[in-house]
Amino acid sequence: MIAALEDFCRAVLSAAGADAATTDAATRAMLHGSRLGIDSHGVRLLHHYVTVLTKGRVNPRPQMRFASAFGAVASLDANDGHGALASYRAMEHAVQLAACFGIGAVAIRNSSHFGPAGAYAMAAADAGYIGLAVCNSDSFVRLHDGARRFHGTNPIACAVPVPENRPWLLDMATSAIPYNRVQLYKSTGQKLPADVASAAGGEETDDPQRVEMLAPLGGAFGFKGAGLAGLVEILSAVLTGMKLSFDLAPMAGPDLSTPRGLGAFMLAIRPDAFIDLRTFQDGMRRYVETLRNSPARAGARVLAPGDREWVAADRREADGIPIDPETERAFRELALRFGVNLCLAG
Amino acid sequence: MIAALEDFCRAVLSAAGADAATTDAATRAMLHGSRLGIDSHGVRLLHHYVTVLTKGRVNPRPQMRFASAFGAVASLDANDGHGALASYRAMEHAVQLAACFGIGAVAIRNSSHFGPAGAYAMAAADAGYIGLAVCNSDSFVRLHDGARRFHGTNPIACAVPVPENRPWLLDMATSAIPYNRVQLYKSTGQKLPADVASAAGGEETDDPQRVEMLAPLGGAFGFKGAGLAGLVEILSAVLTGMKLSFDLAPMAGPDLSTPRGLGAFMLAIRPDAFIDLRTFQDGMRRYVETLRNSPARAGARVLAPGDREWVAADRREADGIPIDPETERAFRELALRFGVNLCLAG
Repeated sequence: MIAALEDFCRAVLSAAGADAATTDAATRAMLHGSRLGIDSHGVRLLHHYVTVLTKGRVNPRPQMRFASAFGAVASLDANDGHGALASYRAMEHAVQLAACFGIGAVAIRNSSHFGPAGAYAMAAADAGYIGLAVCNSDSFVRLHDGARRFHGTNPIACAVPVPENRPWLLDMATSAIPYNRVQLYKSTGQKLPADVASAAGGEETDDPQRVEMLAPLGGAFGFKGAGLAGLVEILSAVLTGMKLSFDLAPMAGPDLSTPRGLGAFMLAIRPDAFIDLRTFQDGMRRYVETLRNSPARAGARVLAPGDREWVAADRREADGIPIDPETERAFRELALRFGVNLCLAG
Repeated sequence: MIAALEDFCRAVLSAAGADAATTDAATRAMLHGSRLGIDSHGVRLLHHYVTVLTKGRVNPRPQMRFASAFGAVASLDANDGHGALASYRAMEHAVQLAACFGIGAVAIRNSSHFGPAGAYAMAAADAGYIGLAVCNSDSFVRLHDGARRFHGTNPIACAVPVPENRPWLLDMATSAIPYNRVQLYKSTGQKLPADVASAAGGEETDDPQRVEMLAPLGGAFGFKGAGLAGLVEILSAVLTGMKLSFDLAPMAGPDLSTPRGLGAFMLAIRPDAFIDLRTFQDGMRRYVETLRNSPARAGARVLAPGDREWVAADRREADGIPIDPETERAFRELALRFGVNLCLAG
């Protein structure tokens, strides 16, 4: 069933005019989200991607090129193409640079919606490298003690290979809570946890109906989350000359025909450039095993970064990927519009 | 008065047997802490440093050498020398590598107490580079849902040059609260904020008397703080073959004669390897100015990372560095022991 879903995404993107590389990359990134249970960055995005690829915001057949190259770093000009294609290509190049220089970094210019940050960090880990992927995004998070939206949720993803295991995988927003969690609380009528979101003017609220912005990670020490978001902003937008989060046109429109000027930043590290591979691998194995076996609080379980996602991936591999009603409706429209066969049955 | 304090630190370290490079680096790092108001990592440490330099844990005259070098990265073997000397030397080399390759990273082996992480990130920013400095440390922070001390407070420091301004400077522990804040609450009899510390077994407590471990940054989303601490652990300890936080002998002893096997990791990025310097500088200036002028919540003020420290630095430049009674007592003992003149008057 996952294969059918993948085929459907490919067929739709291709019929919408995306070239083969864009189709592959966007599908791969969405399936990363859907496989690992990160549905906000999964196939739910297909409809949005078709819209922006056909309305002019995103170039469906980009000519990406390296605008600058210097030693172990480069800048990739994504020619307003799809963010997943730009990000996979940049990380692939960062890994090649790290193969030669021990470390490699690629800053991306003129890109579009990033999708799941962890997908690109994983691309490095799958090649045996430590990968780091960051991107700024629509302004939605206040500063520490701030009263207005400033940074995006500016995610940080990092993946590290672990022998005989799936990678150690951290994929986190620098906000205190994801926005889709606020939406979930809204729909179920629950109160929010303390210190995670604010009403207009920046005052704390636990009422999801009143949320106008998210708090930075850290509660009373929110300068930490805001500082990490700032680091993401500097690497993604300042080091690339792209738009700061508060200057970005909103992802949802109304303007869907103008490129948004998004940047991003990818870093790869080659472990055996620092230390013999065996020592590194033994160290990672022991670190992760000790972590997983560390005693938990009553009623809880200790997980390594990524473990929750790997459990979801196994379950979905067996049971298929659940499609929410809104996404299913959009899929039926897309199938009709592009004359593509849609089969969501297991 | 700051100059007199600096002279005192130098004279004591030198009389305790430290070579000139160790004396310079340790004094520079402690003065970074004391100047910027980070007293936990300021001259308070002098007494501890003398102890470990004279009892065998830290080599007072190390022969540091690069154990490996590959393209834009290297591993520095610090020969069990002082952590400040190792860290400054590693960052200096990372900057040199970044000058040639756009980015440079140096992992440090066989080092000792790190001191203020921001000091080394600042060394890169002062040279016009983006600097990142991380180090693992004594196990004192539980995992997300964990019931036992696992990671250290594992700090992340990052500094970015801003034209006509002091650098953007983030220096943060990945724990929810610093341990010395817990001690402060204990001495004043105040309750702790929610979700920052735990009693034995990992259960939350707001009673500073019951604190057995700190929580990772993030409250209900503590997997983020624990994940960031893990990234620091991997770069500092796994990529160097050094001790994981939970394997480290305690900083305070009783064993003060055996090297602790600490690692650390330094990264430098050359901005104009990615984009023309003017664009980068204009971007940083605008980003930081917009941030500082962003509206604040009622009764609060929005600060850029480092602003609080720069205010402290200006005040202390004018008024001098306050010395707490315990540190003053230790200074008098050191002055007597090494026949060094001590003058703390303005």
